[in-house]
Amino acid sequence: MSAHFKKLALIGIGLIGSSIALAARRQGLVEVISIATRRQETLDEARELNLGDIYTLDAAEAVRGADLVILCAPVGAYAALAEAIAPALEPGAIVSDVGSVKEHVVKVVGPHVPAGVHFIPGHPIAGTEHSGPSAGFAELFAGRWCVLTPTAGVPQAATDRLVGFWQAMGSMVECMDAAHHDMVLAITSHIPHLIAYNIVGTVADLEADTKSEVIKFSASGFRDFTRIAASDPVMWRDVFLTNRDAVLEMLGRFNEDLSRLQRAVRTGDGPALEALFTRTRAIRRSIINAGQETAAADFGRPHEQPPTPEPTPVRDHGGGDDA
Amino acid sequence: MSAHFKKLALIGIGLIGSSIALAARRQGLVEVISIATRRQETLDEARELNLGDIYTLDAAEAVRGADLVILCAPVGAYAALAEAIAPALEPGAIVSDVGSVKEHVVKVVGPHVPAGVHFIPGHPIAGTEHSGPSAGFAELFAGRWCVLTPTAGVPQAATDRLVGFWQAMGSMVECMDAAHHDMVLAITSHIPHLIAYNIVGTVADLEADTKSEVIKFSASGFRDFTRIAASDPVMWRDVFLTNRDAVLEMLGRFNEDLSRLQRAVRTGDGPALEALFTRTRAIRRSIINAGQETAAADFGRPHEQPPTPEPTPVRDHGGGDDA
Repeated sequence: MSAHFKKLALIGIGLIGSSIALAARRQGLVEVISIATRRQETLDEARELNLGDIYTLDAAEAVRGADLVILCAPVGAYAALAEAIAPALEPGAIVSDVGSVKEHVVKVVGPHVPAGVHFIPGHPIAGTEHSGPSAGFAELFAGRWCVLTPTAGVPQAATDRLVGFWQAMGSMVECMDAAHHDMVLAITSHIPHLIAYNIVGTVADLEADTKSEVIKFSASGFRDFTRIAASDPVMWRDVFLTNRDAVLEMLGRFNEDLSRLQRAVRTGDGPALEALFTRTRAIRRSIINAGQETAAADFGRPHEQPPTPEPTPVRDHGGGDDA
Repeated sequence: MSAHFKKLALIGIGLIGSSIALAARRQGLVEVISIATRRQETLDEARELNLGDIYTLDAAEAVRGADLVILCAPVGAYAALAEAIAPALEPGAIVSDVGSVKEHVVKVVGPHVPAGVHFIPGHPIAGTEHSGPSAGFAELFAGRWCVLTPTAGVPQAATDRLVGFWQAMGSMVECMDAAHHDMVLAITSHIPHLIAYNIVGTVADLEADTKSEVIKFSASGFRDFTRIAASDPVMWRDVFLTNRDAVLEMLGRFNEDLSRLQRAVRTGDGPALEALFTRTRAIRRSIINAGQETAAADFGRPHEQPPTPEPTPVRDHGGGDDA
């Protein structure tokens, strides 16, 4: 089953859309890439970056003749986009997306997809804190997972073709139920983002003096949280609006655990603290062993060189072994 | 005022102690380095790594004749160590440390420091998630802040000398009150660690199936938290046992904010979510501008290359512009 497509339509061209354009082009997976955006400025930026072949503000125009359509816009825009493109979709085309939630996508896009068009929602588990068309790069998906949640009645051949497309861009692919995806991602992604946004917000509310000190001394832990709290605001708004139940369920567990930990701090329960802090190391080792993280200290962040030593001054004392 | 010392005694030789040994040696700041540890294995490891000149299990022996003594052990061990070394301290020597809390250190070490010895607690705001003597590297402090909290009666000349020592290793140095240090670090460091340990603990408690999926899909945000939750357990136990009040105060603010955010998710308040998620980006920009973080996407984590494209298959359709 060929992973090659005649015309790929990307509806939206942010970090993920632009990375697909670059990776699909580099791997020779598509002949023509058409790009549709909502805003003229974004379209102009995509054209300057030479991300595609056809550029339009009309999503229906972009999907005409496409055998693969991927929605790469914020999930909140999906319903209107699906309605707009529906009449222009080719029979036999595959419609997919890259949204971080899947049950909601099935619910709002599914009803618009005409018979004979294959709707296979998807979610590449890859990204950075940067957004927009210039943030993409062809290596983004390499070694990362992509989850597909094929809808009822989609022929296996169509799913296999989309699996092949993602694999050719370097992804590992797993198919699962949309609801299961949303629960797993609530804990791996949505709660960490919520927590990071929250703590960075707590700092943003501090008095100006303290805030500038927090920025200064951020290398002690806080700065790690700011990376994920710098992710695209509209995309994340939509995640929390559309995966509410799973997020609230997992947030409940997090809060229970935090209350217990808070009590251990208040009562000075050293053994409980040390036991938790020891247990958590194993999880990181598992992630590194699974190839989803670098083992390098500090994520492999660059470290500056210290200043060049000045010439050793003349000393008037005896000195030691190393003098 | 010379930043040069005749004999540096490092009591404890983990990530920070070993980095001081390497940086001080490379910058030519000391003639002799003596290293004391509690455990023979650690001492042997330090010797194999050639981190010092004198190795002993007797902390008092290590500090004899030293003009600079730095406690690099977990804070929980400080009181006993201070009592043990007190009789062997040289008049005029500087005693410092690298602990993450400062008021507690003043309280438990201060009373043991003899008259004529200058006690200047310190905290280099630098580290990685790795621990032990082999984790250190000479560049750790370059471009990072080091906070000193000189105690009452310490001559300015002694403080200046210690400032010079840290600057020569590449640090920027700031002096402040111990209580103020503890409050700022509670939010920049202690709360982020507590939260990270907590969420990784929540995952560790999940059923085995879900846990393995969380590890698999960790690249979606969770894996960032695992880095700080992989930090040294004993050190962090002691932080929470000794900076309780500031930690509980800041945790209270975090919890208030989280309740508000939880309500915004529950009620589907899109504008409130988007407003918070937008505001938090500015904090990261400030940290990058302050030189405390890399602007590179994903902390500059390495990205794999996608597979080499296979030869383009022969196609039987017309093809587009790019065919």
